[in-house]
Amino acid sequence: MKLYNVEVSGNCYKIRLLLSMLNVDCDIAPIDIANKEQKSPAYLQKNPFGEIPVLEDSDLMLRDSQAILVYLAREYGNDEWLPSKPDEMALVIQWLSTACNEIARGPMDARAHYKFKLDINIEKAQEKSHSILTVINDHLADRDWLELNRPTIADIACFPYIALSYEGNISLDPYPNIQKWISSIKKLPNYISMPGLE
Amino acid sequence: MKLYNVEVSGNCYKIRLLLSMLNVDCDIAPIDIANKEQKSPAYLQKNPFGEIPVLEDSDLMLRDSQAILVYLAREYGNDEWLPSKPDEMALVIQWLSTACNEIARGPMDARAHYKFKLDINIEKAQEKSHSILTVINDHLADRDWLELNRPTIADIACFPYIALSYEGNISLDPYPNIQKWISSIKKLPNYISMPGLE
Repeated sequence: MKLYNVEVSGNCYKIRLLLSMLNVDCDIAPIDIANKEQKSPAYLQKNPFGEIPVLEDSDLMLRDSQAILVYLAREYGNDEWLPSKPDEMALVIQWLSTACNEIARGPMDARAHYKFKLDINIEKAQEKSHSILTVINDHLADRDWLELNRPTIADIACFPYIALSYEGNISLDPYPNIQKWISSIKKLPNYISMPGLE
Repeated sequence: MKLYNVEVSGNCYKIRLLLSMLNVDCDIAPIDIANKEQKSPAYLQKNPFGEIPVLEDSDLMLRDSQAILVYLAREYGNDEWLPSKPDEMALVIQWLSTACNEIARGPMDARAHYKFKLDINIEKAQEKSHSILTVINDHLADRDWLELNRPTIADIACFPYIALSYEGNISLDPYPNIQKWISSIKKLPNYISMPGLE
């Protein structure tokens, strides 16, 4: 199994994090985004979207970090990280959408603006950040994990860009339940860190 | 089972479409978005995100259209619309992320700008529309469906806002494979339409 990876990408990190927690070995192939390797013809063969990460496992080529979490959880995680019961599965899947919608348009975009100088409407990214962080902080008022009273790929999918919020000049001070949730994730067995999270 | 629904929403329509194809009965509860019912305290109890659709099935309350497709497919669709095999499941799930990321930031946002006068960066929405439509058109060059050589919730999730592109002044003329794919979906058993797709 091989992960096409960038160390500073939160979307790549969520895959490395689940691989570590599942104790699954995987080769790491670094992609040189400074030289736009992800837009090269060879890489576009693997992923026509021109983005990282990509996971290759024998004949399977997966291009989306949320889908990769689903694959790893179902292939290597028994029923623990993504249950097969339809209602439980759907409750978890909700947060994969949140990761690639509200969290991407909020804290991820704010970080991309400040850290990578991308052309982002920063006022809108800040507004969306506080909107989604408020909802998640309220959601965590009476529970420790996003769903099912245990860690699942819902938490893994949402964690990186929320925990990296400060790199987008978004403070987590107003969100104590989110801070507690971040601490809980960092204490999970086989937790690993990424640049910016130490 | 009850769907909190808005007729002109592509995200609600994808649920109605799968319900119809699965031949599953569901009560439809209209939400009055003109009077912002989705932001009312009663509705926010159901969905703190303040968005439609919501699906209620006994004790289960689901807030995200992609997760609702997963639930319906797994609960009522056998293995047909979302397979349980991890690699096949993940291939389909990729497109749920595409629906709530690239398609949302592209054709959905462009439609929101022109049809609902929302505050959207229309140049960026147009650019993102053509970028994702090009990728999908190329992807469909040598296949009839997005994955697995048959209709799945990947197609259902991506179909509405792509087929409604023209309401965001995005022409599908440059994308013949997408046009063919839209025709194929419209010919599926139990297909139903929505305002703007007739």
